[in-house]
Amino acid sequence: MGSPDSNHQPHSTIDLATAAQLGDQLRIDSIRSSTSAGSGHPTSSMSAADVLAVLVSRHLRYDWDEPGTAGNDHLIFSKGHASPLLYSVFKAVGAITDKELMTGYRQFGSRLQGHPTPVLPWVDVATGSLGQGLPDGVGVALAGKYLDELPYRVWVLCGDSEMAEGSIWEALDKASYYKLSNLIAIVDVNRLGQRGPTEHGWDLDTYAARAAAFGARVLTVDGHDVQEIDEALTAAAQGDGDRPTVILARTIKGRGFSEIEDREGWHGKALPQDMAERAIVELGGGTDLTVRGPLPAAGEPKIGRSGASNARITLPRYSIGEAVATRKAYGDALVAVGSGIPEVVALDGEVSNSTHADEFAKAHPNRYFEMFIAEQQMVAAAVGLGVRGYIPFVSTFAAFFSRAYDFIRMSAISQADIRLVGSHAGVEIGADGPSQMALEDLAMMRAVQGSTVLYPSDATSAAALVQGMAQTPGVSYMRTTRGSYPVLYGGDESFPIGGAKVLRSSPDDAVTLIGAGVTLHQCLTAADELAATGIHARVIDLYSVKPVDVGVLTAAAAVTAGRIVIAEDHHPEGGLGSAVVDALVGTRDNQVLRLAHLSVRELPGSGTPDELLAAAGIDAEHIEAAARSLLARD
Amino acid sequence: MGSPDSNHQPHSTIDLATAAQLGDQLRIDSIRSSTSAGSGHPTSSMSAADVLAVLVSRHLRYDWDEPGTAGNDHLIFSKGHASPLLYSVFKAVGAITDKELMTGYRQFGSRLQGHPTPVLPWVDVATGSLGQGLPDGVGVALAGKYLDELPYRVWVLCGDSEMAEGSIWEALDKASYYKLSNLIAIVDVNRLGQRGPTEHGWDLDTYAARAAAFGARVLTVDGHDVQEIDEALTAAAQGDGDRPTVILARTIKGRGFSEIEDREGWHGKALPQDMAERAIVELGGGTDLTVRGPLPAAGEPKIGRSGASNARITLPRYSIGEAVATRKAYGDALVAVGSGIPEVVALDGEVSNSTHADEFAKAHPNRYFEMFIAEQQMVAAAVGLGVRGYIPFVSTFAAFFSRAYDFIRMSAISQADIRLVGSHAGVEIGADGPSQMALEDLAMMRAVQGSTVLYPSDATSAAALVQGMAQTPGVSYMRTTRGSYPVLYGGDESFPIGGAKVLRSSPDDAVTLIGAGVTLHQCLTAADELAATGIHARVIDLYSVKPVDVGVLTAAAAVTAGRIVIAEDHHPEGGLGSAVVDALVGTRDNQVLRLAHLSVRELPGSGTPDELLAAAGIDAEHIEAAARSLLARD
Repeated sequence: MGSPDSNHQPHSTIDLATAAQLGDQLRIDSIRSSTSAGSGHPTSSMSAADVLAVLVSRHLRYDWDEPGTAGNDHLIFSKGHASPLLYSVFKAVGAITDKELMTGYRQFGSRLQGHPTPVLPWVDVATGSLGQGLPDGVGVALAGKYLDELPYRVWVLCGDSEMAEGSIWEALDKASYYKLSNLIAIVDVNRLGQRGPTEHGWDLDTYAARAAAFGARVLTVDGHDVQEIDEALTAAAQGDGDRPTVILARTIKGRGFSEIEDREGWHGKALPQDMAERAIVELGGGTDLTVRGPLPAAGEPKIGRSGASNARITLPRYSIGEAVATRKAYGDALVAVGSGIPEVVALDGEVSNSTHADEFAKAHPNRYFEMFIAEQQMVAAAVGLGVRGYIPFVSTFAAFFSRAYDFIRMSAISQADIRLVGSHAGVEIGADGPSQMALEDLAMMRAVQGSTVLYPSDATSAAALVQGMAQTPGVSYMRTTRGSYPVLYGGDESFPIGGAKVLRSSPDDAVTLIGAGVTLHQCLTAADELAATGIHARVIDLYSVKPVDVGVLTAAAAVTAGRIVIAEDHHPEGGLGSAVVDALVGTRDNQVLRLAHLSVRELPGSGTPDELLAAAGIDAEHIEAAARSLLARD
Repeated sequence: MGSPDSNHQPHSTIDLATAAQLGDQLRIDSIRSSTSAGSGHPTSSMSAADVLAVLVSRHLRYDWDEPGTAGNDHLIFSKGHASPLLYSVFKAVGAITDKELMTGYRQFGSRLQGHPTPVLPWVDVATGSLGQGLPDGVGVALAGKYLDELPYRVWVLCGDSEMAEGSIWEALDKASYYKLSNLIAIVDVNRLGQRGPTEHGWDLDTYAARAAAFGARVLTVDGHDVQEIDEALTAAAQGDGDRPTVILARTIKGRGFSEIEDREGWHGKALPQDMAERAIVELGGGTDLTVRGPLPAAGEPKIGRSGASNARITLPRYSIGEAVATRKAYGDALVAVGSGIPEVVALDGEVSNSTHADEFAKAHPNRYFEMFIAEQQMVAAAVGLGVRGYIPFVSTFAAFFSRAYDFIRMSAISQADIRLVGSHAGVEIGADGPSQMALEDLAMMRAVQGSTVLYPSDATSAAALVQGMAQTPGVSYMRTTRGSYPVLYGGDESFPIGGAKVLRSSPDDAVTLIGAGVTLHQCLTAADELAATGIHARVIDLYSVKPVDVGVLTAAAAVTAGRIVIAEDHHPEGGLGSAVVDALVGTRDNQVLRLAHLSVRELPGSGTPDELLAAAGIDAEHIEAAARSLLARD
């Protein structure tokens, strides 16, 4: 395993007695760093210190000088609040200095944040919202087994409290379904949560029965016995054919300092200086070990990396006027993008025949992952696949991305590049009723840090935007529509993210109509009706909701004396209307607006799309009436 | 069990042969109604028809004439897409007519929506987003066992596909933790999902092992054998001491019509007319049974109902200038509101010592439910408790309500009255870093249909708003702050929902400063600095973000020539800024706005609150500079 030409990594694995010393060193450094910062979670770090000491010194195959090495194992702290332990590990392997640990932890501008994020090169994903690290790890393990085809392992340190999160069980279910023997979850069962005992305390039998029932091999150890730990990690590292491994480590919170061991009231509290000093004495005074474990095996991922080059993409083309659903265009375009970019992968939540992700599944079956009805795990898997450089597209009904909102929020903190595509949005879906109607998705996605939000109205633009999303960093979201509507654009039209299309305009425009998706078609009909009585309406296709085209909007407002009708199949808050208004009032020389904002204000029921659009007041008739009303005000 | 004085409900339980006939009748009516509507899920209804036939005719204790009866059992279709079956049951018990079933299903304006909602008096909660009915049922069962102390049972029909949702396992975990022997989940294992086979097919052993590991008694039956079904339901109805029951019913999708039985490609599709006719023939042509099962036992809930009368509430009082965190005021006020209103209950996600819900837990332990780290189940439990008339307050860190967004969205469709209180919002939390910072919660909560969004800046207003929330219908949300800030108001001040407070004003005001929570205090400091150079600033406490006080805002805009600085500890989209701008441009006679919108635009890290407020540009210094910049424009 050694790498003779490395100057930095001796790779002589230490013996278990030294590993035990390292455990105490990690404890001491966890205490020192958190006491120095005045906050943090030393006790939650101390319980897992022995496990981490054995893992990083003897089992984790990792080139600390080259964190981007394809064959590196992955280490994810699902219990992100144990960041003092993680950073103490980084010090112990020589990745950071003691000075950085002692002066940087939780400080402004430092990369050693309160919970780990990928601003650190050795951190794959941001954690701190519990129950996410393991689902993220499933994604990394999927990449290792099915795409990279490299023998790296994914080690995830979980807390016992987070076993109450359903997402943990979604993760184990998918890990066993996909036979992820390269995934090892280590549960630090220290019995105590934030406010008191956990639900199941030290009842390891219950955890074991559950993990086994979900398809995992279960190993149970005393988490402070380095010999037991080492044997379990050895077994785990060897894999178990087709099962993930769950190691249940019975541990003691605050282990090593008798004043706080297994005591309530010490969660998330740094020790005062005097206690810290006593703790260090009790822990043997400290060592200054620098240890590194084995290097990874050499190897490159099986799937080549194109860097999302679009060179070979031939998008589907549609005839103007042809009725095509944008969700169908998504499926068509995803096949094409996947053909041109080998890193593109797709995931869907058991509705691929509705979202049209099934087209990708048929064309590129080795790059499609069925996630069944587990939206949290689906988004997390995308984040994990992104860790390994893949370009994930994730689809389900737009309404059901709300199930994964915490994961989407955390994706942004992970600086993950993921693409979400939600179909069947708004009252336009018709008879299925409000549970299936996304009416808050645009608001929720716009509020994500650094996000991109797209809402095409025709197949041509939808297809072009799928290609654009492949090259868009951060969290990007596209809303597609259930019904089929006429194609508006020829195949040579371009749809830059951040742009907008002006579909009708003249110097005589008296009012601006703005829509996207189904409401754009209603705007066009309304414009025709207005034109029949001599009123010129400018019509804007706001396909890029975030970022939004401020120039097109301000120009329209100027020409039409601030008269603007916005129609959206969404609740009034946070969607198209907000995007437009924020853009217009955010400009320095904004003007008086005469605004009619048509949106879904009451709780809808079932019906036909036409009935529901009319009832919500967002159909052509209401748009036309709103425009006339604005004009009548003057 | 019979009720001799009921004219409507014969309550002679039918024999099993008749129950089997009823099963076919339910199948036929499921086909007839969905074919009539042209959409719906007949095959998913047919698989569960025999189970429902036996359940409603022989076990469900329910007074169909008085759905509000306290002792009624509860029937929840977690697989809400089987609405044809549910509505066919309603017809079979005489609750709706055949005419309504045949003309109303999925029609505009009808109460027989595509997925069930409580617009129907026999429906407790809206379903249709999978994995929610069982968690909701946990809440109803908690009410039955711990609050009402009535012997009703909660029967939940689950689909097999939804067993992939983590929320199902959160529900079973809590059901066993709380020993809910009054909860019976019936899983319709028909092997087929929407797009093909489910993850586990007919592997009932896997489901059984999982449910047992999560603490349930498991009964396995052939879901088309009425004898087996009856025996299982009899056992389930008797309870099992301290365990919930899970009945795994092996069924066949489309059961009873050979052309579609167990076939892929028939999910969510109504049969064409000719197939429907052949199906009805194959199913024996149909019966017109009207059957009702046993009536509930008499009994009233142990906890009295005050109707949220505030008569006896004595809110905590704080001294002006005293530094008190609004989260502390939440805890104080919740104790007081709970003392005055016996229906008030509280739930928290293992952070009650941070949210201060622990004060309620100490004062009213019998009305506090610890939900550990399972936010989806926590919100669902609140919805279920609300079904029984309780007034739930739910708390966790504001960021973690994003975990339950789909449940919150569905709560609105359930027309549930739930109160959510999120602490530790925004960059103000400091060192813990971005994973713990709610920066999209206001956007997400504002976008919920009919929601109320509150953001108090001091302890007095926070306490008053807790009382206000107890009487507020729908989903209401209050954001509280981690740090302690000076009390601004005396205890006699009132804080109507929809109002705002003007803290500084004069006829000479040149600029308006708007904040809430931590930024209001920054606005006050900025106003002081501006005043020192002779600039009068109006300062508005926007404690009610939705609904927002349009009058106060438009008056301020008019007086200050449209110069407004909004500062919020939130991403720029969908929060305070959107609320203000939507209000101002939505008025008919709006004016030119000179707006400075200060919000959190970049990804934050760790630091002190002051450092992070400054870095985000939302502290007093930036507010003052923005105000001066607006004034310099003229």
